Amino acid sequence: MSEFSPGLEGVLAARTEISEVDGQNGRLIYRGGYLIQDLAASCGFEEVAFLLLHGELPTAAELRSFRSDLAGRRELVPAAAAALQALPPEADPMDVLRTALSAQGAQPDLTRPSLEEAVGYVACLPTIVGAAYRRRQGEPPVAPHADLDQAANLLYMMLGREATTDQLRWVDQYLLLLADHGLNASTFTARVVASTGSDLCSCLVGAVAALKGPAHGGAATGAMKMLEKIGSAQNAEPWLAAALDRHERLMGFGHRVYRTYDPRAKILRETARSANPGLYETARVTEEAAIRLLHERHPERPNATNVDYWSSVVLAGAGIPKEFFTCVFAISRVVGWSAHVLESMKDLRIIRPMSEWVGPPPTRKPVPIADRGKAAARQ
Amino acid sequence: MSEFSPGLEGVLAARTEISEVDGQNGRLIYRGGYLIQDLAASCGFEEVAFLLLHGELPTAAELRSFRSDLAGRRELVPAAAAALQALPPEADPMDVLRTALSAQGAQPDLTRPSLEEAVGYVACLPTIVGAAYRRRQGEPPVAPHADLDQAANLLYMMLGREATTDQLRWVDQYLLLLADHGLNASTFTARVVASTGSDLCSCLVGAVAALKGPAHGGAATGAMKMLEKIGSAQNAEPWLAAALDRHERLMGFGHRVYRTYDPRAKILRETARSANPGLYETARVTEEAAIRLLHERHPERPNATNVDYWSSVVLAGAGIPKEFFTCVFAISRVVGWSAHVLESMKDLRIIRPMSEWVGPPPTRKPVPIADRGKAAARQ
Repeated sequence: MSEFSPGLEGVLAARTEISEVDGQNGRLIYRGGYLIQDLAASCGFEEVAFLLLHGELPTAAELRSFRSDLAGRRELVPAAAAALQALPPEADPMDVLRTALSAQGAQPDLTRPSLEEAVGYVACLPTIVGAAYRRRQGEPPVAPHADLDQAANLLYMMLGREATTDQLRWVDQYLLLLADHGLNASTFTARVVASTGSDLCSCLVGAVAALKGPAHGGAATGAMKMLEKIGSAQNAEPWLAAALDRHERLMGFGHRVYRTYDPRAKILRETARSANPGLYETARVTEEAAIRLLHERHPERPNATNVDYWSSVVLAGAGIPKEFFTCVFAISRVVGWSAHVLESMKDLRIIRPMSEWVGPPPTRKPVPIADRGKAAARQ
Repeated sequence: MSEFSPGLEGVLAARTEISEVDGQNGRLIYRGGYLIQDLAASCGFEEVAFLLLHGELPTAAELRSFRSDLAGRRELVPAAAAALQALPPEADPMDVLRTALSAQGAQPDLTRPSLEEAVGYVACLPTIVGAAYRRRQGEPPVAPHADLDQAANLLYMMLGREATTDQLRWVDQYLLLLADHGLNASTFTARVVASTGSDLCSCLVGAVAALKGPAHGGAATGAMKMLEKIGSAQNAEPWLAAALDRHERLMGFGHRVYRTYDPRAKILRETARSANPGLYETARVTEEAAIRLLHERHPERPNATNVDYWSSVVLAGAGIPKEFFTCVFAISRVVGWSAHVLESMKDLRIIRPMSEWVGPPPTRKPVPIADRGKAAARQ
């Protein structure tokens, strides 16, 4: 039996060829042996999604076929559309996504996760998120557009009009950068669910449930709320110092694995300069002050900026409201979740760790109910 | 870094005082230091649910208050009722539960898991499952009955009439026995989701997603299908031998942790004698033959009957159709899931294990799309 490791730090829970987070060297490797910055420089989201799902970058013909496959599968089944419309318009968009995705995957019989099914879920997530946004605005949903790709369809179904080339480039890059990231908590959740022999929809719903947490996918929204409170570059240092004095956690800094600057954050920081010039300067000065203050107070901790910090600036610049950042993250990461589930199917073994009992030894007998609470005052 | 442990065998992933599976000695200890057989002999499900959630068995006044709290919270919110009715009637009942539970918990703001919220989910699960069953039968849902407890309400909302005292006793005992079981895959899923700071509904939806798998909660349905195929005591041995010759896995045998007879299976086997006399003899002879044949072929493996095997016989005897066994399991285990999530809140740390990279080193550069697939025929 191993020693207790809170958070499973250092525990190897899978062998994978989907992606590798090389935290020491600040590198992220995607399937096939590509560095994330090389893919970001020359590929689009659909190419990288194909790579993560199939193991190779697509040829031109394969990419056409993949795009047309996605385009043909964006519609929601009636149950998912109805479930979405049944939810209160003000519900957390991640709760809407969790529910509508669950309805989308309801089937009479248990199915074994398949690549074909995965493509269907990748295709329909923007449709759910678009409709959730429209419902929040009191507007009817916009049907998917067969000629538009993932990023373009998302913006089209949210905003009701075609996005600018710049907006598309920013969102497409974001989707590509976030599509997989080793055994993060939501991907691990998907693999645990898969390990019981459950279906792909169940794996993805579990992953959405985990992504929602502010220590995971919810962090970008948290970072934006912080930047909004800070408001201006000159307010950054005093605001951060006061927050640290109150022992608050600064959103957007620190990561379990990276010991140096997250390569995705580096790319998004550069993009943020043009994507969100209004916020860029505040964010840049805030980042610099946060890293300095954190290092002064906790010199032992690696406290590099994480991807969520600069994601928030880029997504806001592309016109996505902060309440939807985590949903857009899911639209990207569903590719990685699916690829991990499919990989895990090759050698399925139920994931069932041990726990250490810290309760009393089994020496007590239940006291008859009439006599309970008599011996001593209950705490 | 630890060695790779497929399935996380032997990895300590939590310290807990909710329950302990002492596999070597065939003991299951519930919170407070009670053996499962002692609780089964003298308590009902609501008492044990209170114990797992609060840490002590309730006094008579506490139990009254807990029952009335449950009774007051069985109704579904309109969104959950609508989502449920939107699903195809023939959808897998676990998919209905996953979706309706997700809708039930949709909230505008992120909430921190609380005991009060947990009681609400424990209360409403039978309502979802009852309505899912009625819908499958083409019948309108039956509203919860304020005077009935968990087992009684479940049967009432499914069957549309009050159950017999015997039926109630069998289902109540089943619910009590299955309410928690260490770090099984669904409970672990709930803890992983909780570790990101997500809400309680998300944790429970993730747990339902994992429970669905045939290697976990789905096993009882699998065991019943096997018993139905076997059909009679005299057919048991030839059927099992032929299945093993085809390298099929026998449902209902073997467990990751128990090295001796599961104490819950022992109690349920005794109950099955009166709960399902028609099937009992076939099940008993099948069990004996299965253990003998498995031991002959794999003498190194511990192959005791698991709880799912005798659960299936008891639940069928109580009038529950096999398609709903896993849902009834969830109605029980939601107590343990909630107790584990609440326990984990005391020291929240994101669960994020490591993976081992088995892909190629990051030496490849993306080839321009026009040149892909030219160097060699694609596999």
